[in-house]
Amino acid sequence: MKVRINIERLKADILSLSKIGYQEKDCGIYRPGFSENDMLGREWLVNRIKDCGFEGYMDDAGNVIGRMGPGGMPVVACGSHIDTVPCGGMFDGTLGVLAGLEAMRVIQENNIELKYPVELIAFSEEEGRFGGMFGVQAICGQIKPDWLEVAQDADGLRLKDAMRQAGLDPIRSLNVYRDRRDFHGFVELHIEQGPVLEKIGKPIGVVEGISGVFKWMVRLIGKAGHAGTAPMEMRSDAFMGLADFAHEIPRIIEEEGTDKSRLTVGKVDLKPGFPHTIPGEADFTLVGRDMSSEVMKALADTCRKALSAIARRHNLMFEYQQMSWLEPRACHPEIVELFARKANDLGYDHERMVSGAGHDTQFMTEITRSGMIFVPSVGGVSHAPDEWTHWKDIDKGANLLLSVILELTEGK
Amino acid sequence: MKVRINIERLKADILSLSKIGYQEKDCGIYRPGFSENDMLGREWLVNRIKDCGFEGYMDDAGNVIGRMGPGGMPVVACGSHIDTVPCGGMFDGTLGVLAGLEAMRVIQENNIELKYPVELIAFSEEEGRFGGMFGVQAICGQIKPDWLEVAQDADGLRLKDAMRQAGLDPIRSLNVYRDRRDFHGFVELHIEQGPVLEKIGKPIGVVEGISGVFKWMVRLIGKAGHAGTAPMEMRSDAFMGLADFAHEIPRIIEEEGTDKSRLTVGKVDLKPGFPHTIPGEADFTLVGRDMSSEVMKALADTCRKALSAIARRHNLMFEYQQMSWLEPRACHPEIVELFARKANDLGYDHERMVSGAGHDTQFMTEITRSGMIFVPSVGGVSHAPDEWTHWKDIDKGANLLLSVILELTEGK
Repeated sequence: MKVRINIERLKADILSLSKIGYQEKDCGIYRPGFSENDMLGREWLVNRIKDCGFEGYMDDAGNVIGRMGPGGMPVVACGSHIDTVPCGGMFDGTLGVLAGLEAMRVIQENNIELKYPVELIAFSEEEGRFGGMFGVQAICGQIKPDWLEVAQDADGLRLKDAMRQAGLDPIRSLNVYRDRRDFHGFVELHIEQGPVLEKIGKPIGVVEGISGVFKWMVRLIGKAGHAGTAPMEMRSDAFMGLADFAHEIPRIIEEEGTDKSRLTVGKVDLKPGFPHTIPGEADFTLVGRDMSSEVMKALADTCRKALSAIARRHNLMFEYQQMSWLEPRACHPEIVELFARKANDLGYDHERMVSGAGHDTQFMTEITRSGMIFVPSVGGVSHAPDEWTHWKDIDKGANLLLSVILELTEGK
Repeated sequence: MKVRINIERLKADILSLSKIGYQEKDCGIYRPGFSENDMLGREWLVNRIKDCGFEGYMDDAGNVIGRMGPGGMPVVACGSHIDTVPCGGMFDGTLGVLAGLEAMRVIQENNIELKYPVELIAFSEEEGRFGGMFGVQAICGQIKPDWLEVAQDADGLRLKDAMRQAGLDPIRSLNVYRDRRDFHGFVELHIEQGPVLEKIGKPIGVVEGISGVFKWMVRLIGKAGHAGTAPMEMRSDAFMGLADFAHEIPRIIEEEGTDKSRLTVGKVDLKPGFPHTIPGEADFTLVGRDMSSEVMKALADTCRKALSAIARRHNLMFEYQQMSWLEPRACHPEIVELFARKANDLGYDHERMVSGAGHDTQFMTEITRSGMIFVPSVGGVSHAPDEWTHWKDIDKGANLLLSVILELTEGK
C-alpha cells in the first residue's frame, strides 16, 4: 500500500507552532522548557491532536501524548520535543513531533488497520534548560526526588518553581515512568543540526547511534608578569600551554580517534587577561565525543598525558575536573536496518551516521527498540533563527518516518 | 671622594610615602595619576624636599621638582614618578624619586661643590591612566591641546576634569615645556619589574634602551556550530586558528627576532564562548617588542603572514588593527658607559640589558643625554602588593645613582 504524507498540511502546522514564542527583535523562537510560551505551545499541540480526532493529553512531566489504534497493546511511539533554546529555530524538535502527527493523520484518513497502536510523544524540556532531558527521562524512570530539589536554570530559577508556574506538580512527574512492555518501538525524525548531509548531497541520515560525550574544565596555572620585562624563556605563560595543547588535537584524534571523534575547546578564560600581561592562568573547557566508549577513554587519556607534558614543558600547574561523562548509545540495529531498507524502497539516497548532538532517542534506547533519522540543515545551522531545512527534504523525512511507523504497526 | 647614601634614611622615606594611598583590604597602594591620593603624595614630596632645605614646587603639569646648586646652568636631572597603578607596590617609580632626593641630601651634607645644579623630577601620571606619560611628555613638549580634550581613563573620567579636581589648570600644562639647553643629562633608577637580574644573580642592570612596542587587535572569524554535529574537517574553528598561530610564536622569534624580542597574546575573547559550540570568532591582542625598529617590522610582517596562512588553512577570515607602534629608544652611550664604569668602581656586578617596560627615560632621551639602571625585583613581580626589592640591592642602586650624578655635576 502506497500512502504519502501531505507536505502542505505538515508545513501549515510547523508555521502555526513557530508563531508561539516568536520574537520580532531577532526573529528567534523562545519556548524554553516550562516557560509560559512552552506551555502555550503544549496547549496548542494538545488541541491540534484532539482536533484531528485523536486522544490527546499532557502527562505529569509535561510530555504531550497523542494516541490512535487498539488498546491493551504495546505502542509504536514516535516523536521528539517542542521546547526550544532561547532564540531558536522552527524545526529543531518541532519537525519530529508534527511529522509524527501528520503520519497519524495519514493512517487515519486511509483507514489503515493497526496491529499495534501509534503514540505521538512531544517530550518536555529536551533542550536541557534545567540539565538533562526531563520529559524523556521521566518516562524512562530516571527522575529522582533530589533532581527535582536541586535542578535550576542558568538564571537560578528552580525546576520545581518553573513546573509549578507551568501548572505542574513536580513530585507527580515521578509517576509518568512507563514499563518497557508499554513499547513496541520508538522512532524520531530530527534535523541534522550539522553540515554533513548538505555537504554530501543526501536527503536522509540514518542514525546508528548518539555519540558519548565528556566535558572537562581544565586549568593551567603559570605566572602572570609584564609582557615586556619577562624574556620568552623565563615565562610560565598559561596561554602558550593551552595553544600547544590545542595544536596537538588533530594528532590526538589521528592517533587515538575515529572519523566520529570530536575534541573542542569552546570557552577560554585568561587571567588577568590584559594585553601587556603574560597570562598567569588559562581556564578552558574541553568537550570530547565518540561513538565508542573505549575510544572516548583513549582520547581522554591522551589529552591528559598531552596536557601533563605541556604543563611540564611550560612550567605550569595542570588540573582538570570531569564535569560529565555520558556513554554513547547505539540505536537498535533492527530499527536502523528498517530505516535504511525503507529509504531504499522510497528511492531516497541516505547516509549512515552518528549523532553528535543529544536527542530524546538516546534515552528511549534504554527501554525499547529505538532509532532516528536526520534531514539536512542548510549550512549546518541550528539553535538560531536562520535554522532551515528545505521542504522537499522535510517531505522525504516525513514520508520515511510514516513508512517505518506503518511497518512497525504491522508487528515488525 | 667617597660618599655613600644613607639606606636607613632612604628606607624611612620609602615607607612614609607607601602609607599614602595604602588600602588594607588588599595591601595595595592606590595613587593613580591626578587622584586625590596621588596629589597627597605630591604634597608630601614637596614638603619633604623643602624640609631637606631644597627649593621645591609642583609645575603646571603636576611634576614635582626639587633643585639644588648654582643657577643659570643646565641641570643634571634625576628622578622617576610617584603615581602608581591601582593596587600597586611601594617601589615602582617611588624608588627613583626618593633615591634622587637622598643623593641630593648626601651632596648637601658633604658640602660638595656643584659645577652643574642637580634637579629632582617626580614626573606626573607615568603609569598611563590617561594614556601616554603625561608629565614627562609635557616637559618634552609633546602635549597638544587635543590630547587635553580627548584623553580619559578606563572609567570615562576625562583628563582635564581629573586635573581640575587636582587643582591644576589643564591648559597651563602646555607651559611646562623645557628647552633641551636646560639639561645637562638625565638619570633614573628603577626596579626591573622582571625576573632577569634575580635569575642571573646580579644587583644592577645597566639599561641600553627601552624596547619599541606594537599592539595589535586581531580578529579571526570562522563559523560557530554545534561541537557534536560538525566533523573536525568541516569546521572553521577560530580558536584552532589562534592556537596554531600562538604555536608558531617561538619559530617566528627564532627566525626573525633577537634575544630581546617578545611576542605576547595576553587577552583572548572567544565568541560565543560556550563549551559545546565551536568558536566562530576569536578576538585577541598581540603585543610585540624589540630593541630594533627593523626587527619589530620583521616580527610584525612575519606574524601577519603566519596569520594569513593559518586563516586560509582553517577557512577563517583574518583582520587586524594596529593600535599603537612605539619606536625603540636608545639610552645615550655616554650615560650607559658612565653607569657601567661606576658600577665597576663600586664593585657591583652588572648586566647590560634592555627595558621591556616603558619609563620616563624613554621620553627624556629626546631632549637630553639620558640613561637608567635597574635593581632586581624579587620573583620579577611588579604592579602588585608583593612587589619587593631587597634593601641591600636598593642600597647599591642608590649609591650607583649618586656616584653617576656626582660625576655628571662635575661636568662629565
